[in-house]
Amino acid sequence: MNFTDILGFIAGVCVMTSVIPQILKVWRTKKVKDISLLTFSVLTFGVALWVVYGILKNDLPIVITNSISLFLNLIMVYFIIYYEKE
Amino acid sequence: MNFTDILGFIAGVCVMTSVIPQILKVWRTKKVKDISLLTFSVLTFGVALWVVYGILKNDLPIVITNSISLFLNLIMVYFIIYYEKE
Repeated sequence: MNFTDILGFIAGVCVMTSVIPQILKVWRTKKVKDISLLTFSVLTFGVALWVVYGILKNDLPIVITNSISLFLNLIMVYFIIYYEKE
Repeated sequence: MNFTDILGFIAGVCVMTSVIPQILKVWRTKKVKDISLLTFSVLTFGVALWVVYGILKNDLPIVITNSISLFLNLIMVYFIIYYEKE
């Protein structure tokens, strides 16, 4: 693993895990009024397409990182819909 | 451009533009209380690393898409900090 690979790995981990503080914040406050459902829906759809892209290209890093992202963003979308109704 | 390339392109555009509805929502409401600053900071940092990664790898699509993402997410971070103080 050279410097560029390590950089790409850190970049991927940052982008992948970035939604976690938002999930925890909603989990604690149960408030989603200021959050855009459309933003997280489009993001989740895009990440789902990346998973399909990774499968078609047989690119395991793309499949793995985006599957984790997909899982986390689906939680976020569910939270927004669930707490918006409350 | 084959089917897989088109899929990757749509995936990239979705992820890249997904933050726009959130920016417009904050722009209209001027409310950011429920939004996690840490989420958008880590995301922006990760996207910035992708730009550097793209430059080092001489990969123009990565540089271009992530530069646009970086610009949009910087607006979002600025909005959160600016409206949190109000």
